Amino acid sequence: MSLFDLLLSSLLVKALVTVVFLSLSSQMFFAKKKWDPKGKHVYVTGGSQGLGLALAKDLARKGASVSIVARTQSKLDAALKELESLRQSPAQAFRAFSFSLNTAGASAEALEAVCAANGGQVPDAVFACAGASRPMYLIDMTPGDFERGMTDGFWVQAWTAFAAAKEMARQNKKGKIILVSSTLGYMSFVGYSSYAPAKHALRGLAESLRSELLLYGIDVHIFFPPTMYTPGFDEENKTKPSITRKIESTDEGLTAEQAAAGLLTGVQRGDHHITADLITSLFRASTRGSAPRSNAFVDTVLDLVALIGVPIWRGSVDKQVIAYREEHKVYLESKGFFSASR
Amino acid sequence: MSLFDLLLSSLLVKALVTVVFLSLSSQMFFAKKKWDPKGKHVYVTGGSQGLGLALAKDLARKGASVSIVARTQSKLDAALKELESLRQSPAQAFRAFSFSLNTAGASAEALEAVCAANGGQVPDAVFACAGASRPMYLIDMTPGDFERGMTDGFWVQAWTAFAAAKEMARQNKKGKIILVSSTLGYMSFVGYSSYAPAKHALRGLAESLRSELLLYGIDVHIFFPPTMYTPGFDEENKTKPSITRKIESTDEGLTAEQAAAGLLTGVQRGDHHITADLITSLFRASTRGSAPRSNAFVDTVLDLVALIGVPIWRGSVDKQVIAYREEHKVYLESKGFFSASR
Repeated sequence: MSLFDLLLSSLLVKALVTVVFLSLSSQMFFAKKKWDPKGKHVYVTGGSQGLGLALAKDLARKGASVSIVARTQSKLDAALKELESLRQSPAQAFRAFSFSLNTAGASAEALEAVCAANGGQVPDAVFACAGASRPMYLIDMTPGDFERGMTDGFWVQAWTAFAAAKEMARQNKKGKIILVSSTLGYMSFVGYSSYAPAKHALRGLAESLRSELLLYGIDVHIFFPPTMYTPGFDEENKTKPSITRKIESTDEGLTAEQAAAGLLTGVQRGDHHITADLITSLFRASTRGSAPRSNAFVDTVLDLVALIGVPIWRGSVDKQVIAYREEHKVYLESKGFFSASR
Repeated sequence: MSLFDLLLSSLLVKALVTVVFLSLSSQMFFAKKKWDPKGKHVYVTGGSQGLGLALAKDLARKGASVSIVARTQSKLDAALKELESLRQSPAQAFRAFSFSLNTAGASAEALEAVCAANGGQVPDAVFACAGASRPMYLIDMTPGDFERGMTDGFWVQAWTAFAAAKEMARQNKKGKIILVSSTLGYMSFVGYSSYAPAKHALRGLAESLRSELLLYGIDVHIFFPPTMYTPGFDEENKTKPSITRKIESTDEGLTAEQAAAGLLTGVQRGDHHITADLITSLFRASTRGSAPRSNAFVDTVLDLVALIGVPIWRGSVDKQVIAYREEHKVYLESKGFFSASR
């Protein structure tokens, strides 16, 4: 056992004792009642495929009425059939509405349609699952590509949260607003310069809203999924730079069903930041800002592991990027990057 | 001494030993040469007042040629006079250009003008200091207010970084790009739901770019200033909700000169995340994501302090917000919020 190992293990033992104490005291003060979707009306954006659909199905199975919004009518029709097949009670209503959610106006209209079909009542919970990612080198992006990252990663959810927060406050509904960020809301690396800013922005929004909406008793949660094997993932692989693909090659992703189950567990438990895999949990614990922690005991252990582990990870990724310089230069030259007019 | 104090102090002692070790080893591997602005050409956006002007003056004093961009010609003229008065050598060039930086096109044009005046050469360092904040309740915002937060907090810098990264790569300039976030890029609370997302987004951008621009040997830094007593601060106080003002009443801010000095020290030392006050340093250390740490020893101590301190801070702020509910309801009623049509 090296000096380093010795120091580390001794530190960890002490830390464990401290965090058991913190954990017990936090349990005493903040025992939470589990949220139950049964009989609730929930709104899921991006609900026709991937994470949104898996989540809508989970909620249907648990007895909720579910309204989904997405762009493509044929996908909505198929999703609605799946929801019907999971019906637990005749009281459950399943509805689908076709809207794009990229603008303030369209997102407000979508929410209005969802409310109107439910007697004007705002949903009990709004899950903003819509979004898309197009990984690219910044150097290869047009201004439109760069801007689209913010629209498809941030605004597509932020406008729904904006409309829902106002309507919940107006109707005095002590509801829930759930945003979906990404592991890339905690950290980033080459290839994600349009996506990571959007996913970080969602985190800033969630933390601001959590505080502001305490004024109304509205809860805000944010989920940070890792790679998910969904139609969105196939889409993003079309533009993903090869170095990004290489760095990610050791990632273990989640299926949409696994991610949805993790998200729902976190919401039911009342966690503000929700993660469903070890790597992202390490980042959650060590990148906490002023966000409430989930379990002080577990999070502190994870934080200490990340203290040592993350710099090692970053060092290895930096090395991979630097080793890629020559290959990248050839790529740029083949595109005429250096000779192009600005 | 309570059990808790005992545990904490024992944990801290062990942590100190570990981090001294980590610190020494990181010093061995990553000894850095200090960056010297003397004889360099630097570009400072927002350079006519506040942080940008203080920074431009510091750089002029240190012997750099300085190009500033801002909107108002009269302020640029005044700033240029100040820079002239600090001239150290006849070789220094001081130039000012009037541009708004809100769009991709305008930011690219501004950079082109700065390059053209310097024989087509891209600057050695680009400091994106432009930006503005309008704290408000989300509930009070129009979609335009919400969107403006992203423009004035993110795009006004991101478009400059976008243009500068491409031009530095094209000219094979191993330069520096420096973004300016805020304490609110690490955390957030009521009042900042349009600003905190933008400042978090800059952090995601900086972390993505740091990794991507390793391909070209271009350095990326990001500064997180606290409250600064600048013209921008007076401006944001005009819209700041009273609860936000109350929460901030105990803050100790920095002058623009103090903040500029802290920023420049961090850039010269080669830190990726730069902070210049204790509170923001606590957040930096405990909200590190995958960003490189500055000093492993100091940062780990700060992290441990934040582990205990930040939840206490958050608890007290949450209590203040909840205690404000009734007063806020009266405010909303006075505005006709509950009776307004959507």
